Amino acid sequence: MKKLTIVKVGGKVIDEASALNAFLQSFSTLEGEKILIHGGGKIASDFGKKLGIEAKMVEGRRITDNETIDLVTMVYGGLVSKRIVSKLQALKVNAIGLTGADANVIPATKRPVGAIDYGFVGDVKPENINTEILKKLIDSGLIPVLAPLTHDGEGHMLNTNADTIAASVAAALAQQFEVKLIYCFEQPGVLSDFENKLVISEIKRAEVAELKESGVINEGMLPKMDCALLALAHGAKSVRIGSFENLKALAIGQSGTLISN
Amino acid sequence: MKKLTIVKVGGKVIDEASALNAFLQSFSTLEGEKILIHGGGKIASDFGKKLGIEAKMVEGRRITDNETIDLVTMVYGGLVSKRIVSKLQALKVNAIGLTGADANVIPATKRPVGAIDYGFVGDVKPENINTEILKKLIDSGLIPVLAPLTHDGEGHMLNTNADTIAASVAAALAQQFEVKLIYCFEQPGVLSDFENKLVISEIKRAEVAELKESGVINEGMLPKMDCALLALAHGAKSVRIGSFENLKALAIGQSGTLISN
Repeated sequence: MKKLTIVKVGGKVIDEASALNAFLQSFSTLEGEKILIHGGGKIASDFGKKLGIEAKMVEGRRITDNETIDLVTMVYGGLVSKRIVSKLQALKVNAIGLTGADANVIPATKRPVGAIDYGFVGDVKPENINTEILKKLIDSGLIPVLAPLTHDGEGHMLNTNADTIAASVAAALAQQFEVKLIYCFEQPGVLSDFENKLVISEIKRAEVAELKESGVINEGMLPKMDCALLALAHGAKSVRIGSFENLKALAIGQSGTLISN
Repeated sequence: MKKLTIVKVGGKVIDEASALNAFLQSFSTLEGEKILIHGGGKIASDFGKKLGIEAKMVEGRRITDNETIDLVTMVYGGLVSKRIVSKLQALKVNAIGLTGADANVIPATKRPVGAIDYGFVGDVKPENINTEILKKLIDSGLIPVLAPLTHDGEGHMLNTNADTIAASVAAALAQQFEVKLIYCFEQPGVLSDFENKLVISEIKRAEVAELKESGVINEGMLPKMDCALLALAHGAKSVRIGSFENLKALAIGQSGTLISN
């Protein structure tokens, strides 16, 4: 099977030109087939403020109303996507920026209204990812760049977490490629000691429950770890979590935290 | 040769949901291979005003500065593109929204600074259009939806007139397809009598110069007519200009103005 590296990047690297340039330079050097999934950064909130669209929260959860889905479609699917794509093109990487609506790559289901109505938020399942067209694009020499947006098949764009998209795409493509999934964020890995930035070099699937229990895996790392486990359960070869500054080292297994079976 | 219908749509249809829905419904019924090129509508100006980005004019010409290229990248490449794509997906048209940077479909040259510095405006040439990848996408069953944005290959997005993109793409693909180019706008065709909306049913290439001279072809129709001539000169089979409300009739040659060799 051909190797495929799936890289997810988010956080402040999206907002800072020099950090983004350095990251994309590293991404351009990765060998073999690859896919980039990007988050939205703070730009959406910044534009939202200017447009008078305030972040809507209900019981601590972010709500995607009509105005907000338009805002993130513009910023994630337009500004951030095309900024990344044009920079990658300058690095001779033949990137193609996509949302889940484009070529119906990621059909999703609008999250059902329960105690909270999340609004235009899309839940995705690995089995619904359109792997056939993704493979065709890759086989045509293209590097898909996926924005954290999906659609409901009824004419509406939906907001979907980029970590979840990365895990679902990795899971879906694990049948056709030897998939390596890399999560790039602002920490050097999963930390055993946050103050001293001590990185856990490897976590086995079987150890995750205990690390959650003991609080080592906590807050923002909890959903990321669940994403890693989803990808592994569907056959991804490895998942690695580390700093966006260390992408090259992460890709050759010399940085960050390896999550393994 | 396979037939390919290239439809350009712009103006208020982009801004009005019911008009856009009706137009896309008609587009979905067109037989054979097809490409849609959309303008930006007034939405960009509306968002620009809210963001405090005023339209910049120098000697009556619109200038695309740093803020403006970000604005149109968001609105044309994000909001308008994905709105159209998600609606087409709901109509079972497997649309893929692209800017010229995506898959390097439309490389452009930043317009040289002369008497006026137009800023981030891209000039395109039919011979530079990446027909190979467009054909691969079409052969994969996809319907390209092109936003009026290109790139300079050096990491910058550029603003390019949608009529020009439509003509250049039609010209470039005329070697590989039997190309029919349709310009949809707010008038029923090229008018011989504006007050009474009398439509000229056919204009031969050889007649254009005289109609320009006499003022029948004037103002906004002048560049559109030049676009039509460019496409015809490169081998497009026909160009038709008419109302976005009459797309089905335009596609079967029963509405609008035919521009022919």
